[in-house]
Amino acid sequence: MAVKRLLVIGIGAGDPDHLTIQGAKAIAATDVFFLIDKGEEKDEPVRLRRRLIEEHGRPPYRIVEARDPERDRAAAAYAEAVEDWRARRAELYRRMIEDELPDGRTGAFLVWGDPGVYDSTLAILDRLPYEYEVIPGISAISALTARHRTTLTRVGSPVHITTGRRLAEQGPTADDILVMLDSRCAFAGLTGYHIYWGAYLGTPDEILIAGPVAEVADRIREARAEARARKGWIMDTYLLRRPR
Amino acid sequence: MAVKRLLVIGIGAGDPDHLTIQGAKAIAATDVFFLIDKGEEKDEPVRLRRRLIEEHGRPPYRIVEARDPERDRAAAAYAEAVEDWRARRAELYRRMIEDELPDGRTGAFLVWGDPGVYDSTLAILDRLPYEYEVIPGISAISALTARHRTTLTRVGSPVHITTGRRLAEQGPTADDILVMLDSRCAFAGLTGYHIYWGAYLGTPDEILIAGPVAEVADRIREARAEARARKGWIMDTYLLRRPR
Ligand SMILES: C[S@@+](CC[C@H](N)C(=O)[O-])C[C@H]1O[C@@H](n2cnc3c(N)ncnc32)[C@H](O)[C@@H]1O
Ligand SMILES: C[S@@+](CC[C@H](N)C(=O)[O-])C[C@H]1O[C@@H](n2cnc3c(N)ncnc32)[C@H](O)[C@@H]1O
Repeated sequence: MAVKRLLVIGIGAGDPDHLTIQGAKAIAATDVFFLIDKGEEKDEPVRLRRRLIEEHGRPPYRIVEARDPERDRAAAAYAEAVEDWRARRAELYRRMIEDELPDGRTGAFLVWGDPGVYDSTLAILDRLPYEYEVIPGISAISALTARHRTTLTRVGSPVHITTGRRLAEQGPTADDILVMLDSRCAFAGLTGYHIYWGAYLGTPDEILIAGPVAEVADRIREARAEARARKGWIMDTYLLRRPR
Repeated sequence: MAVKRLLVIGIGAGDPDHLTIQGAKAIAATDVFFLIDKGEEKDEPVRLRRRLIEEHGRPPYRIVEARDPERDRAAAAYAEAVEDWRARRAELYRRMIEDELPDGRTGAFLVWGDPGVYDSTLAILDRLPYEYEVIPGISAISALTARHRTTLTRVGSPVHITTGRRLAEQGPTADDILVMLDSRCAFAGLTGYHIYWGAYLGTPDEILIAGPVAEVADRIREARAEARARKGWIMDTYLLRRPR
């Protein structure tokens, strides 16, 4: 029986050349691309996906677009809001796959960065009755440390990867902390740390700032606010490192 | 003044197709490749580097080989042994670069996985008076989670990345723990966890085992010992996840 084949392809965190050879081959092998539009100003991720499909896709292929279900970002119960949104998104995926991907054909989701890092595509597909394959991608973590010419880990030491929300709630939990999804500059008070901050990594808008938190926190906050206002959205991430 | 240009290129964690387009372009732009041989049976990493150079290098280029300074792995003071080894390695790099890389030319180090993840190349180059650029790569972390079709992070939750040595010393420190550099199966007692284990990821020898630690720990230990005996070396990594 011919089944539907699904690929989840990590496309890297902003630079089109972050795509791996494996990712390029997977795009070339795809018949139907599923593109989810957030319906925001934030359409740059969609533009990168389209560009990679144009560059590496092998016609004939089709692009199926859908609008992301709204997520209640103001909800107090974060996990439940996410759970509800995932259920609706799973239903959207199921319909797209059933309606638009013929048996025996290959469909693909292009995921920003690495599909394993703070992305819900796999958790959503796990609710559906399809097999899928995952192609790893360059995450914003690797992009950040490469651009700052530093490492994520120090010799034999652990690193904690966490969110801005967690960092704000719990304070620092390690000497090396990588923070994503921070909309509130949770690093601000952490004066014992050095920070490596990056926004729009891998894109022409990239901004890099590094230094002791005590010295550069204000500069980062200003650069962040200015860029966010100008572009309408921002993605930024940072590494906190306590000097030894 | 023409300076020496240095590239540190992440080549991915085993699969030649992990290389990014950026990595392939960087290899094509390189005049002199510096290859460090561990002088062990463990020459597969060297083989992958040679293969990528052959595939993506643009002649004329040269390959400069050197033997890795021995590291005292039995030393009780791990950090000091590493420090001593790094100093000797920095001297080796300096000599290779001075003697073999003409001014105005581009030299490259090909680093396994991502240069930011438990790798000392950047820390060593930081001791030398050269500028360098870093090209991120697919780490064993991304390779592991992709092959298990799981994520490194759960919604809004932190993940700790650590070493087998630390895990053995400190016990589990989070609900999600990614462990590298473990030669002693430090997961063995952690019966409250699910484990996603992978060895030789991305290579034809790849082994994947997943399940509750209580059920699969013995199978992993046996598979590990058997593969290690057969091949003479092993590289493996795993994700521990406490079910909720
Ligand atoms: C929903 S997560 C997705 C992460 C993605 N899967 C990855 O592997 O990088 C989005 C967060 O990733 C980080 N991020 C992604 N791309 C980035 C970039 N190009 N520059 C800075 N931060 C980025 C930001 O912290 C952002 O809030
Ligand atoms: C010195 S660290 C280098 C890590 C590398 N820079 C990276 O980004 O993956 C070596 C450790 O990485 C992990 N590792 C690297 N490649 C691997 C592979 N192909 N399969 C399983 N584990 C791997 C193992 O835990 C190994 O002990």
